[in-house]
Amino acid sequence: MKRIRKWVWLVLPFYLLTCLPLSATEVKSPNGNIVLTFTVEQGRPVYSMTYKGHDVIRPSHLGLELAKDKHASKKFEETDLMDGFLIKDETTRVEDNTWQPVWGETKDIRNHYVEYAATLSQPTQHREMIIRFRVYNDGIGFRYEFPQQQELNYFLIKEERTEFAMAGDHMAWWLPGDYDTQEQETQQTRLSEIRARMQQAVNWGNSSVAVFSPTGVQTSLQMKSDDGLYINIHEAACLDYATMHLELVDAETKALSTMLGGGSNAYTPAPKPSAWPIPAPMTFVSHLTPDATGLKGCMQTPCETPWRTVMVSDDARDMLSSNLILNLNEPCKIEDTSWIHPTKYCGVWWEMIVGKSSWNYTDEFPSIKLDNIDWSSVTPNGRHAANNDKVKRYIDFAAKNGLDEVLVEGWNVGWEDWANMWKRDVFDFVTPYPDFDIKMLNEYAHSKGVKLLMHHETSSSTQNYERHLEEALQLMNKYGYDAVKTGYVGDIIPRGDHHYSQSMNNHYLYVIQQAAKHHVMVNSHEATRPTGLCRTWPNLVGGESARGTEYEAFGGSRPDHTCILPFTRLQGGPMDYTPGIFVTKLSEWSDNPSWARITIAGSLALYLTMYSPLQMAADLPEHYERFDDAFQFIRDVACDWDDSRYLEAEPADYITVARKAKGTDNWFIGGKCDENGHLAVVKLDFLDKGRKYECTIYADAKDAHYETNPQAYTITKKTVKYGDVLKIKEAPGGGFAVSLMAK
Amino acid sequence: MKRIRKWVWLVLPFYLLTCLPLSATEVKSPNGNIVLTFTVEQGRPVYSMTYKGHDVIRPSHLGLELAKDKHASKKFEETDLMDGFLIKDETTRVEDNTWQPVWGETKDIRNHYVEYAATLSQPTQHREMIIRFRVYNDGIGFRYEFPQQQELNYFLIKEERTEFAMAGDHMAWWLPGDYDTQEQETQQTRLSEIRARMQQAVNWGNSSVAVFSPTGVQTSLQMKSDDGLYINIHEAACLDYATMHLELVDAETKALSTMLGGGSNAYTPAPKPSAWPIPAPMTFVSHLTPDATGLKGCMQTPCETPWRTVMVSDDARDMLSSNLILNLNEPCKIEDTSWIHPTKYCGVWWEMIVGKSSWNYTDEFPSIKLDNIDWSSVTPNGRHAANNDKVKRYIDFAAKNGLDEVLVEGWNVGWEDWANMWKRDVFDFVTPYPDFDIKMLNEYAHSKGVKLLMHHETSSSTQNYERHLEEALQLMNKYGYDAVKTGYVGDIIPRGDHHYSQSMNNHYLYVIQQAAKHHVMVNSHEATRPTGLCRTWPNLVGGESARGTEYEAFGGSRPDHTCILPFTRLQGGPMDYTPGIFVTKLSEWSDNPSWARITIAGSLALYLTMYSPLQMAADLPEHYERFDDAFQFIRDVACDWDDSRYLEAEPADYITVARKAKGTDNWFIGGKCDENGHLAVVKLDFLDKGRKYECTIYADAKDAHYETNPQAYTITKKTVKYGDVLKIKEAPGGGFAVSLMAK
Repeated sequence: MKRIRKWVWLVLPFYLLTCLPLSATEVKSPNGNIVLTFTVEQGRPVYSMTYKGHDVIRPSHLGLELAKDKHASKKFEETDLMDGFLIKDETTRVEDNTWQPVWGETKDIRNHYVEYAATLSQPTQHREMIIRFRVYNDGIGFRYEFPQQQELNYFLIKEERTEFAMAGDHMAWWLPGDYDTQEQETQQTRLSEIRARMQQAVNWGNSSVAVFSPTGVQTSLQMKSDDGLYINIHEAACLDYATMHLELVDAETKALSTMLGGGSNAYTPAPKPSAWPIPAPMTFVSHLTPDATGLKGCMQTPCETPWRTVMVSDDARDMLSSNLILNLNEPCKIEDTSWIHPTKYCGVWWEMIVGKSSWNYTDEFPSIKLDNIDWSSVTPNGRHAANNDKVKRYIDFAAKNGLDEVLVEGWNVGWEDWANMWKRDVFDFVTPYPDFDIKMLNEYAHSKGVKLLMHHETSSSTQNYERHLEEALQLMNKYGYDAVKTGYVGDIIPRGDHHYSQSMNNHYLYVIQQAAKHHVMVNSHEATRPTGLCRTWPNLVGGESARGTEYEAFGGSRPDHTCILPFTRLQGGPMDYTPGIFVTKLSEWSDNPSWARITIAGSLALYLTMYSPLQMAADLPEHYERFDDAFQFIRDVACDWDDSRYLEAEPADYITVARKAKGTDNWFIGGKCDENGHLAVVKLDFLDKGRKYECTIYADAKDAHYETNPQAYTITKKTVKYGDVLKIKEAPGGGFAVSLMAK
Repeated sequence: MKRIRKWVWLVLPFYLLTCLPLSATEVKSPNGNIVLTFTVEQGRPVYSMTYKGHDVIRPSHLGLELAKDKHASKKFEETDLMDGFLIKDETTRVEDNTWQPVWGETKDIRNHYVEYAATLSQPTQHREMIIRFRVYNDGIGFRYEFPQQQELNYFLIKEERTEFAMAGDHMAWWLPGDYDTQEQETQQTRLSEIRARMQQAVNWGNSSVAVFSPTGVQTSLQMKSDDGLYINIHEAACLDYATMHLELVDAETKALSTMLGGGSNAYTPAPKPSAWPIPAPMTFVSHLTPDATGLKGCMQTPCETPWRTVMVSDDARDMLSSNLILNLNEPCKIEDTSWIHPTKYCGVWWEMIVGKSSWNYTDEFPSIKLDNIDWSSVTPNGRHAANNDKVKRYIDFAAKNGLDEVLVEGWNVGWEDWANMWKRDVFDFVTPYPDFDIKMLNEYAHSKGVKLLMHHETSSSTQNYERHLEEALQLMNKYGYDAVKTGYVGDIIPRGDHHYSQSMNNHYLYVIQQAAKHHVMVNSHEATRPTGLCRTWPNLVGGESARGTEYEAFGGSRPDHTCILPFTRLQGGPMDYTPGIFVTKLSEWSDNPSWARITIAGSLALYLTMYSPLQMAADLPEHYERFDDAFQFIRDVACDWDDSRYLEAEPADYITVARKAKGTDNWFIGGKCDENGHLAVVKLDFLDKGRKYECTIYADAKDAHYETNPQAYTITKKTVKYGDVLKIKEAPGGGFAVSLMAK
């Protein structure tokens, strides 16, 4: 019986999937623009999606392949959750509520959707699975739910096989699928061109590269169709589950998940090709991040997958203003959130990234062991940045300029040989170098109304970090730190694990939860890309999980990079992009030949276009002092908002946004463009009618250019009112920033 | 150049290794019986060993194969530490000291050896490695040492390639090499018969089986040569290093480390065969336990391997009285050891093992999640053993009979689905079931001079255990527990790791160290086999790491089992064997058809022959009450000693030992035999001359037999003195116990 059904599928899939049967259920978004269709076809769940009549997702299968467990236990179900299903029950309901984030782009967030849940039974296995869809005006989310049941208690995921059949050869902004890094430059190609571009797209220079397929890409994946639809695939609420990648089936696909050679992680067993039929070309198939054994997940019912999200609109601005990802996450689980606050900060950081000073204190030893070193007697290398004098200089700068905190990296022992050495006991997170007086510096900072911002580089030795975490948080409480930047550079220890696996995603959440108990905010670098968990755990105030400003010191990023990130990386939550580089040619003050492809006005714009409640002023104090009139904008700009209006947007081209500062009537506007420049036309129709605003415009000078003249800017002041129009020219690689202070 | 050298080795090894060159260094044991020979031959280190002129180890290579790291970093050395060596320096010294263990078989331990260290240079790599030998009268220890040096900072071990070339086809008592279990029945075969016996030797019924080779065996490996030598290979001080197995090269060996199919761990990458020549047949080659990626170790200099030990004597008793393993460990690292004490205990345990009651509290749910259950409202299954009434019964029994502690298993929530479900968050180690009043029970016990003994079953979810460890230890301190039995049943989480890997060995030590901070003694079940670490960390008072009494409820163990363990498992440290089963036919009081192959007198003997500072009276109180006159011996027997004399011994046949109770003039004697019975002849030449002793002899009755008449014993009292001879007949599967109270 089963064999016959499989045979049918081998010959018929293309025919069968060209259209859905008449019996399919249709679910419409509140405004009717989106239509979701769901049915079970030959025992397999199939969905599709249209927007204003245009195909967004063509009929696509849903299901999970299960792995066999070595324990031949009845308790482990090993039959795939792929076929043999019947629809047992269907429910539909409408939800419309509004909630207030602890911090965010808007004061209120409306959560309005039509929910459809199909309970599927798999009679041969006596099992049930629910597929739940939520259809919003700007997209859909759906997930698999596994109720607790006698015949489905535990299962192991070989692969999730969620399909997203694209309706055309879209333009796509993509990163190579990789289990360990997401710091690549974004590629812009047609879907059909992904394979040819892959080899050059991989960030081979990164210490952690683990690509898995010549057509594997990451989410959030932004696309644009020839009929003008903006389509974005990502996920929401990835909790105790592996991060999803997408593997494109193209004309050359012979099998899914064919491991790339070369720079891939030699320790990872190559995923075995799926036994299931390969879907039609131009279909993405989910591909989860494996554990050290190649397995994708260990599940216990009741449980559910993260939400798989497909956002769509014919207006690119809707991609940026969407709250679909946040809405699909659970409400805040922290009762008292009074200690969570938006933060502007500077830090002892950029000069180390650039290579002018060092995180480590000594060069005396070929390697170190923490329990073997008498730090008071070692020879300093003279380049250690996190020293008392320098930190005090930064504290003074922060205090003078109204910055809330000062990040100090390299304060704790262990940096001598911290990365990629497979050292488990690499840091203890509590022992300062001899020239960093932790007590004095915190007291000094507090006396000036500033806090220090803690840094925990784990070197991806997660077991070591968890062993020291409680003591490290206690130290933070003792000295008055209320935020920590965590780091996960290098290969995961325990060996074989990956940055985006189920266990690592659990680890990141564990740290967030432990930090919350100590009233500590977390800004996690090199961790998994966010999926809106900051709604549930708003002490997760930021993260990296993409190519940040540091790459400006590692060869630079393209000028359009920051016009892509809000469409992709920022969908899941704010990024600690660490903007604000004013002296873009690093050779001006260091031996580093790298340079940032941005103008000063463009850098100011990032404080608006790259939304985050945590914003750094990343350059050196002396550089800001050189351009103090421009720095005024960074002093002024808010980083928490009552309202946000995306005024102009096109992926990789330009973004213009206006935001109303929290609890005030002041607005700030930022515009950022790519290497081609842009004329922003900003109609001030969001201001209060009848009110006047003191307007300061920080714009690129006429001859400004990210390469030849990045420091040329103009500052113009005038009074404006509702309905006025600002036309501001952005230079190649430039941008602008505007403050509008209500009079 | 290298290719030529390799070619030479391919054709010449058998010739070259038949004898060592005249230039080899010879090192003799203090009494001259053992001669160690070392040289570097064709660039490869080679050693051999004789005892009274008999070959023990024929010329055998030493070295390590290194793995390539995916990071092409100069810092990672990837050239093997196998050949290209020259002897740069040699040192010899004699050590003779005596130390006192915190607890042990004797009050004083003499550490007397001749040490020889060869510093080897590898000129092409500019590296150095030291091989250090310690030659004792009863064996040798040697290890590799890697000083910190510019060209050897970090390295990854593909395989340690220490050879032990046997001089003949010895009789061997062996366990199948296995990364995850050591609970098999011991096999007794010639070396040449290992391969044929392997398939049936594997404990396929165990939940964790990961065998790696048809000729792989575990240490401690006891052998006997045809010329009457007892030879034992094991290791000492296995710290932050993977546990060693031995892979025998036999006539059929085509390549080393060929994975067995079938029941092996499907998640473990098969070790790749070594590129190095296979040594001559009858040679054991070291085989380390891999991590999840198949790698054997991550090393940072300065560091060293554990000691590889070869004990030898022509008297089997020397195998049992040897302190070589302890001597090769570091001195005690705990400053105040006053809280560490020998312990006799009973416990709520056996009735669950037998299947009459349960660890879990409810059968209501197909599976549970700790954060989802309201324990106060669930339906009890009525079989939960760790309830207030029963625990009080055990406390009363302990108090009445002078037992120090009461172990209670199943006291904490999570037992409903605890094993092999890949559940990370399986226990929290602090939440009692509703019918276990932790405060009341501890207070009740303390009021009677008894302590409760904590139980932490980790279910091998080590990350979960480490996350809860501090809180769990604090709970113990709060309620006055001073000892914990830990458990590692099932597959290791994180998945892919193994019970005896470098990371797991580090975990066990971490737990011991954290426990020591809280003044908690540790008794670790299913953990790695011990290598004498209890000298350094004497709060490690016991362990399982072998087939314990529980197997008497799982089909039983052979009668000779306990006559082998002291030669093998106990070499590394005491075992929590949990002896004392008086009602051996379990069907007498349960539905379990299994039965213990031992007589009551034999059970009493185990308190002497299976040395441990931690001794359980494992049977039910009512069973002891039935045989209260025999139980008198368990009440009386000490478990810490000023002196021990092994009087008779032959592996798998019989062991007779006399021990002098700590701080007294009382002696206790135990004799245990195999299925054939034994006539013990005990000359009391160790008693104080001129002193009289009240002697109580617990012996098998004439017609006693482990199968047909296990409960037939006699108790005889008489007065004895120095020089008297006791002749005591041990029944098949029987034994005897004697107490000698100084008058």
